[in-house]
This record gives sequence, structure tokens and C-alpha cells, in this order.
Amino acid sequence: MKLDPTQMADWQIAEAAEQNIKPIQEIGAKLGLQEGELIPMGPAVAKINYTQTWKRLKDAPTGKYVDVTAITPTPLGEGKTTTTMGLVEGLGVLGKKPIGAIRQPSSGPTFNIKGSAAGGGLAQCIPLAPFSLGLTGDFDAITNAHNLAMVALTARMQHENNYDDERLAKIGIKRLDVDPERVQLKWAMDFCAQSLRNITIGKGSKMDGYEMESGFQITVSSEIMAILAVASSLKDMRERIGKMVVAYSRSGAEVTTADLEVDGAMTALMVDALNPNLVQTIEGNPVLVHAGPFANIAIGQNSVIADMLGIRMGDYLVTESGFAADIGFEKFWNLKCRYSGLKPDAVVIVATVRALKMHGGGPSVKPGKPLDPAYTEENLKLLEKGCANLTAHINIVKQSGVSPVVCINGFYTDTQAEHDLIRRIAKEQDARCAVSEHWLKGGEGAVELAEAVVEACEEENHFEYLYDLDMPFKDRVHAIATKIYGASGVEWSEAADKKISMFEADPEIKQMGMCMVKTHLSLSHNPDFKGAPSGWILPIRDVLIYKGAGFVVPVAGDIKLLPGTGSNPGFRQIDVDVETGKVTGLF
Amino acid sequence: MKLDPTQMADWQIAEAAEQNIKPIQEIGAKLGLQEGELIPMGPAVAKINYTQTWKRLKDAPTGKYVDVTAITPTPLGEGKTTTTMGLVEGLGVLGKKPIGAIRQPSSGPTFNIKGSAAGGGLAQCIPLAPFSLGLTGDFDAITNAHNLAMVALTARMQHENNYDDERLAKIGIKRLDVDPERVQLKWAMDFCAQSLRNITIGKGSKMDGYEMESGFQITVSSEIMAILAVASSLKDMRERIGKMVVAYSRSGAEVTTADLEVDGAMTALMVDALNPNLVQTIEGNPVLVHAGPFANIAIGQNSVIADMLGIRMGDYLVTESGFAADIGFEKFWNLKCRYSGLKPDAVVIVATVRALKMHGGGPSVKPGKPLDPAYTEENLKLLEKGCANLTAHINIVKQSGVSPVVCINGFYTDTQAEHDLIRRIAKEQDARCAVSEHWLKGGEGAVELAEAVVEACEEENHFEYLYDLDMPFKDRVHAIATKIYGASGVEWSEAADKKISMFEADPEIKQMGMCMVKTHLSLSHNPDFKGAPSGWILPIRDVLIYKGAGFVVPVAGDIKLLPGTGSNPGFRQIDVDVETGKVTGLF
Repeated sequence: MKLDPTQMADWQIAEAAEQNIKPIQEIGAKLGLQEGELIPMGPAVAKINYTQTWKRLKDAPTGKYVDVTAITPTPLGEGKTTTTMGLVEGLGVLGKKPIGAIRQPSSGPTFNIKGSAAGGGLAQCIPLAPFSLGLTGDFDAITNAHNLAMVALTARMQHENNYDDERLAKIGIKRLDVDPERVQLKWAMDFCAQSLRNITIGKGSKMDGYEMESGFQITVSSEIMAILAVASSLKDMRERIGKMVVAYSRSGAEVTTADLEVDGAMTALMVDALNPNLVQTIEGNPVLVHAGPFANIAIGQNSVIADMLGIRMGDYLVTESGFAADIGFEKFWNLKCRYSGLKPDAVVIVATVRALKMHGGGPSVKPGKPLDPAYTEENLKLLEKGCANLTAHINIVKQSGVSPVVCINGFYTDTQAEHDLIRRIAKEQDARCAVSEHWLKGGEGAVELAEAVVEACEEENHFEYLYDLDMPFKDRVHAIATKIYGASGVEWSEAADKKISMFEADPEIKQMGMCMVKTHLSLSHNPDFKGAPSGWILPIRDVLIYKGAGFVVPVAGDIKLLPGTGSNPGFRQIDVDVETGKVTGLF
Repeated sequence: MKLDPTQMADWQIAEAAEQNIKPIQEIGAKLGLQEGELIPMGPAVAKINYTQTWKRLKDAPTGKYVDVTAITPTPLGEGKTTTTMGLVEGLGVLGKKPIGAIRQPSSGPTFNIKGSAAGGGLAQCIPLAPFSLGLTGDFDAITNAHNLAMVALTARMQHENNYDDERLAKIGIKRLDVDPERVQLKWAMDFCAQSLRNITIGKGSKMDGYEMESGFQITVSSEIMAILAVASSLKDMRERIGKMVVAYSRSGAEVTTADLEVDGAMTALMVDALNPNLVQTIEGNPVLVHAGPFANIAIGQNSVIADMLGIRMGDYLVTESGFAADIGFEKFWNLKCRYSGLKPDAVVIVATVRALKMHGGGPSVKPGKPLDPAYTEENLKLLEKGCANLTAHINIVKQSGVSPVVCINGFYTDTQAEHDLIRRIAKEQDARCAVSEHWLKGGEGAVELAEAVVEACEEENHFEYLYDLDMPFKDRVHAIATKIYGASGVEWSEAADKKISMFEADPEIKQMGMCMVKTHLSLSHNPDFKGAPSGWILPIRDVLIYKGAGFVVPVAGDIKLLPGTGSNPGFRQIDVDVETGKVTGLF
């Protein structure tokens, strides 16, 4: 069967490709996995026993490490995962042993407007339905561990409210005296459930909880997701989970999951989630899937563990950092690489003609709406203007000391003149550039990109962090805002200012990492500022503390930790063929 | 290693027994499963591909069908699952090919006060940690499918509130006009999260949802759990999910998941959950695990699918119906058997000296508190008085036309005289009786029980339903209240009365089944009425409609669909050995 992305939806291509899917044992063998290291979970999905495999591999030689980032995307996304898969296929065509490392999709976007996060066209990972619908349950484990902490906290508040010290002492419980106004944790759900953003809980009698304001956040933004992304071992994960600050007491003391005596049980729910998942590309190359997306409101990186294993099992590990270079790559660079100790050998910046035209002033691009002809017909003027955004992202990557490779993720409506224009601008910025047609042609279409990446990996590497951990948080935010985002300065709200001073005064927190929360739809905090905006101030509205994950989280602008489901959500199209059990309509 | 239940916690026995656990492929081979029918999910757990296996087995001969129920339990439970496992082991010792079929535990009790639901002592199924902590994710799938319906409903209410008809029409959406006072569905979470019982959602701006009262229910009480328990195929499950009534419109019309166009996506999340799970007893006999517990607030039965398969794969299928005969067995008898078309060949009633003494007026039994000496020393007076409860349950089972087998689940503090007394009373009621020591001795300890069950299965069977589906609901409730619970009559609240009349007037609903919600701690609706209470009236407070599952749900007395976490919850003891990954403290 000929797979034609111009005629078939992604899920139809996946379904057809799955006719020839390789048994997961065969993919495991490609990675050199030994007895007990591969744990099949169905015919084409497996977990990799991290502890056992790491023991064998920890001193093994490492391959090349390639990160894939992008320019500021339209709300449709610019094919970063597609390019990651395409690059893996292209490296495969060149005879290398490539491995992909991507994040597991959140059910929020899957059922809302963004659809599958498996790539697209002929550059996808399969099997699509398990990949898109929870895989081996890691996110459910995170949701459950997170909510168990909230169950422990809210039940404790109720019991401390209802019972006297004597009764509590009988069961060995000392009063924590949680301040209901200073509960830090929300509940978690992996859907875009905006109606749970702000809620009142504990209504009814004194046996129905403690009445207070609360809310939900999307699972991918949970601190436990961050912990999964940065943990280096089960022991490390266990310790981090116990350090999570869920609230403060009325006297200002931290209340942690360990104080609630729930950290062990939370870890029990997370034991299996620590093992990375294994799937394959359409062309049969291995893909590790571990931890979560949403680099705007979370760390948004594939796990340190998956990368540490992957780089020792192949000769190229292609990993992906969420959204654009200001968001995902900045966190890859200053946060994830600090945890892993790894340094990228090359960084790919994905650009599309569509997004660059939008940055040049093209009409707004919205999911579910037909594209304006400006995007499907040649328009060099819009494109050239929009390339300011590409230039900005090239310069972000260059500041890390690694040479960027611009990948034009080709679309079949693009013209040669459009591609030539982008190539010229990349060259002016002294960046490699390749056009890639992996969406249309799979690995064969990505050979130019793969060759450019192989070449870039041989270059001398001057990778260094943007800031030291000795730098005060406000200075770090200022550095990111001005050097990465292109802002003129930073403005702190009173609440944020108070919190950051408190964190700065804590010698343990002071040395922690920092994970920005900011929209991905602009280099600035304002989604409407396209291109490479200048002359604006970054407003910091709030600061969260993820003491278990090990970072403070400045929140820029009006961004929500629980997105909303739109009026025309994707779940309307999803169904099941009841004869075969195949899921249809994952878009 | 000698496994001694008097010296070791259940989880320690499980851990030791797991040293010799059989590969799940070996257990699958015992069931005669063929290529593709067994889907290993880790080394000792598998799913069974239902559709494929059923196709092969549907005309196969069936074995004997044994249900295990109990007397009214103490809050500690009287070892029904333990006895189910013990009976399977005992039948194995007799050289039969037995299969167990039990329900997957809910995380609510697991992390709260009840602990593991894998059985106990030497009558357990293993591996314990996966079994206790989500197994292959079926309950997470239910939670997710359930909450996706709520996401669809609440987002729709918001969008209908914010947008005019024209804008809705553009995306092909017709106004449903949901009445916020008549939303039937709650959100789901599989924890005892009492603070989410009554909540206000949608607070904030008009983009933060539609403000209204809402709440959570425990996942096991979800209609989707009921659908999983009664569905006979993927097609059947798909249709049932689409019929779920989530709300009523302002004009009184039903609003279903199909109206929200979310039923296909919900089914997509449930495809894998339809496949029963396979584990093993400590002695290596196969155990199917599928669907959920909580026969007080849910159907509380292992799935029809698991039983339909199991009865064709061995010569004895031992299944379990939740709690006591008034609750679990009544639903097994009048609801589950109607869906499956199966008839039990024998029914085991589990009794303990401890519970019978409590029914005779012994001091209250509470989790986490030491037992009063009345329970650990011989006390024939309390015991004899309490046997009124046993007699009542024997008579419930007899009304179904099947001969009961009383199983005294022996405890090492029981005396011979106590056992003799129970045997005498069972004999007076013309019921078989066996003492079983499976907890202490495994299958060897359950031989007397197994022999009694084999004998009972050879008896002539007069099984028939308590009521026909032509009978009006009020008459059915009256029949159950007076003949099963021993009430003098039924009292309907105004709200319940109004609802039942509405359901009675609907020709489709009129012919549906009925699933009572009532406490399991008494034959009555009042947990304090022990023994075999008489002269009381059953109050029906509310009636729910599970149109997808196919039954109406009368709610008796003040029972909650979301239990609470106690002040000394089990999660305090649960932890992980970070060197081995083993979960400790599952009690």
C-alpha cells in the first residue's frame, strides 16, 4: 500500500504502517537490550528496566546528542516532533544507528485541538493509538501520585480541624496547622478541564472535608512530571517526591509530602513510570518516550533517564525540547543539561514557511479554520519580514555555544523561491540550513538534514550555561528576558517579588535551577507579539517552588496551568471500529 | 522459605512467594490460550484478548460456576477474596482445573484503611504490587473516560453560555441547553477524597467554565465501571457508553454522551480495558481480574466477560460477589446472571467467628484498633446469638434456588466448640458447612471446602430470578427489601418517588435491571443494626439512572458515592525499597 500524506490523515498512515510493525523485541534487540531489560507491554510497546540497564551501560561510550527545537510556532505547531522522527529516519538512511527520544502526549491536546504528538505524514512513531492514549500509564501514575498528596493534605486538614491534639496523638499524628490560604498544590487531571481551574472544595458537613478555595492543574504541569523528567534513579525520585512543598503552616513552615507521610505511597505509584517506554518509527528505528510536553508551563522535556540510556545505545540520540528555542531549548540548555551533565553536539531549529509568514504579519492562524491563501501561495515579502523570528532563534542557540542547523520543514505548497530565501537568511546568520521532506517522503526526504546534522556534530563544541547557579534569581530572569526573549527589562508583581525574596533567602532553594513559565506563541509574554518584538517589559506575576524537582518557577504574564477545551474539540472525531478495536480519527 | 501467616504480613508472604512466581505465559498455557490471545504486560501479568479468545471459545463446553459471598462483614472484611483464592487452591489440590475470577482493588481502600484485596495469608494472588496499584490501568481508563464526559459537558455549557446560535452552528453544534440543576454526572477519582464530594466549579471569568455545584464520585461507582462489568463485546460497550445520561436539558430532554459527541472518544480510552487481566495464586492457579469492587454503591461484580471466558477455560470458575449475600449476591443473582445468562452451580457463604460474635452483640470492631478479647477467646453465647445473621444469609441464597455451602473461614484463635456450633446451625438450615484453613495452610487447608463445593455442584439446580423485568420498580424494591433484607416495608422520599415514576413511564427504562445502593455493614440500611434486624422500614432517598449500563439505582439511606480517608490511613505505611523497586507495606 502506497502511503501518501497528501491523501491520507496521519492516523490512516499510522494504521497502514502498523500492518508491518516490527515486534518490540526486535526493536529492543537493535538497542542491544538483554534478558530482563526489555519489558513488553503488548506486541509493539515496551518499557525498559532502567535500573538494570543503567547498571550495564553506565560506563559505555556515548553517541552524538542532537536537540530539536523550533522558531515561534503557530497554534498548529510547526512539526518539531515530525522533524525529530524525520531526522531519525534520515540518519537511518545514512546507515547510522539513530534513536529518537520524545515526550509522551498529554490527553489535554489529544482530545482538544492539537491532536496526536507522534509526528506526521511519513515521519511518525507507531503504534499510534497506544502512544496517543496513555501508553503504559505513566501520566496516570503521575495524576494518581499527585492527587494522593492532595487527598493526604485535605484529609489531614479536616481531621486536624475536627479532632483535638489528644486524639491525633493517639495515632501518632502531630498537628501541621496548614494555612488554608497558603496551600501550594492543586489537584491534577490530564485534560483541558477549564471548569476545574478555580473551585471551592470541602462543602457540606465537617465530615465532607475542609472548605477552601482550590483548583486543578493539567497533569503535565505537575511537579511530579518535572521530577520524572529530571530524576536520575529510583532513589533520587523517592527523595525528590518527599521534598515537594504542598503548603505552608500558619507559622510559615513548609509542609511537605514527607510531613504528610504520603511520599512513600506516592513513590509506590511511580515505580514503573521511572522506566522509559519504547516504540518505533514507521521505518523501524527505536524511539524512547518518557515524561511530558508543555514547555510553556512545565519543563517540557523528555526525561534525563531516557537520554542517559539512549545516548549509550545508539550513535545518534535525537531528543526534542518543547516549543521554540526561547522556551524549550532554554530549559534544555540551562536546566535539563545541568541535571544530565550531557552536552548537545548539534541543535536543529525547525522552521516552516507558514510560521515565518505569520511572523511577517500574515493573517492569524487558528486550529480548525482554513488557512489564508497568503500561506498556500508564494509570498516572499511576508516571509522575509517574518525571518526576524528565525534570526532571533538562531541567535538564542548560538549563545549556548552550539552551532544551529536550520531545518526548513517543507510543505508541498512551498515554492523554491521561498526555500531559497530562508536558506539565504540562515547563511547570513552563519547557520547551516537544510530543506527536509520527511513528512512527504520519510527518511529519504530527510537525507540533506541528516547530513547537515552529522557535519554539525563534528564541529568543535563551546557549550556553556547562560548563568551560574550562584546568580540571584532576579538576575537570572533578567538575563533570560533580555538575552533570550529580547525584552528591555523585567517587572515583578508585589506577590512575585515577595516570594522570590523568600526563596533567595533560603540557602537550599538559592542554589536550585529555574524553570520559566511563559507563552510559546511569542518570544514575549504576549501571544500577539509576533516576529522578534522589542521594546517590551516581561511581567513576572507569580513564582512557584518545585523543591522536589529542584527549581523555582517564575510565571510570566497571564498564563494558565490548566488550558481550556475549545468549542470544536478533537474528541468529536475520535471513535473505535468495534469489529477490529482500532481507534479512528486521532488527528 | 517457610511462609507463616501468623508471623508475616500479607505483603511479606506475597514478596516471598513471588520468588517462585510462574511466567505468565505458563499460566496462559494452563488456560489453553493460543497465539495472540495472551498479551503479557510485564513478566507476571497479562491481558487476555477477549474478542479473539471468545471467537474461539464461544461454543466450547462450560465448567462449573461457583459464586462466593458472605455474611454481613465487620469493617475489616471476613476474607471473601481470601476464601475465593483458598477455594481455587483447594480445587487445585483435588486435581481439578480451577480458575478464580475476582475484582480489581480500588486505590481508595488500598491507600486508606482496608488494604490489599488480593486475599491473605497463603490464599492470595500475586504479584501483589501490580495487582494492588492499578494493574494494567483499567481503572485509570475508566477515570479518564468518565472525566472526558465531564470535560465535554462543562465545556459545552460554557460555550453555549458564551456564544450565540450562529457561532455554534458554524462548527455544527446545536444548543443542548443543559439545566445546571439537573446535571446527573459527577467527576471521578479513585481515591477516598471526601473534600471533593461537594464542590463548586467554574469560578472566575466566563472563560473559566460555567459556575455550578458539582462533585466527585469514586471511580468504582462510575457508570463506566458498571458498563465494563456487564458488557458482552466491544460493540456492546460502545453502544452502552453512548447511552449514558449525563444531564437533562431545561426542557427535560435527556443529554447523553452521544449528544456531546464524546462517546467514541470515551470508548477509545476503554478499548484495552475490555480485555480481562490474568494473574496467579500463590500455588500457581490462574486468576482473572476484571472490573471493580464496592457492591454497596456499585454493581461490585467481576465482569461478565471474564466469567464467560473463564467458565470455558477450566472446569471450575470461582467468582466473587462483593460484600454479603444481601448486597453482592443479590446483584450477582438478579443483575449479573441476567446479563451473562449463566447460572451458578453452587454458592459459598463465608462466615467468621469474629463477625458472628459482633452480630451477637460483641463490642464494635474498627480498623486500626486492637480486637476486644470477646473475639479472640471462646464465647459461645455471643456466637450463637450472632448466627441469626448467618441464617438470614443462608435463606437469601436458598431463595435463588441454589444450595449454599457455608465456609467457616477459620482463624487460629477459633475453638473447636465455636466451629461445632456454627456447623450445627448450618445443618439446621439444611446447608453444607466446611471449615477452611486456607489462610494458614493454602490449598491443603481448603480441601474440606473444595469437596463440599464439588458435591454441591452435582446437585440439581433450581436457580431463578427474584423478580421479572416486567415487575414495576417499586415492587422490585419492595421484594428485595422484605424478602432479602428482612424489612417490614419501603419508604420513598419525595425526590426518589418523583424520579422512579419518571423512569417507570419510560418504556425503555421500565424493562431495565435494578442495582441497589445500600450499606454492606448491616442487612438493613443502618450500619448499626447488626444480626438479622426486623421491624424496620427501608428508606429510599434517591434514584439514579445508569441507562448505558442498563439499570436504575435506588439509593437506600445515607450512603456516599465517595468514601472518606480516615485519620490513620494506610498510605502512611507504604513505601518503596529504592534498591530493588519492591513496594513495601501494602497491608
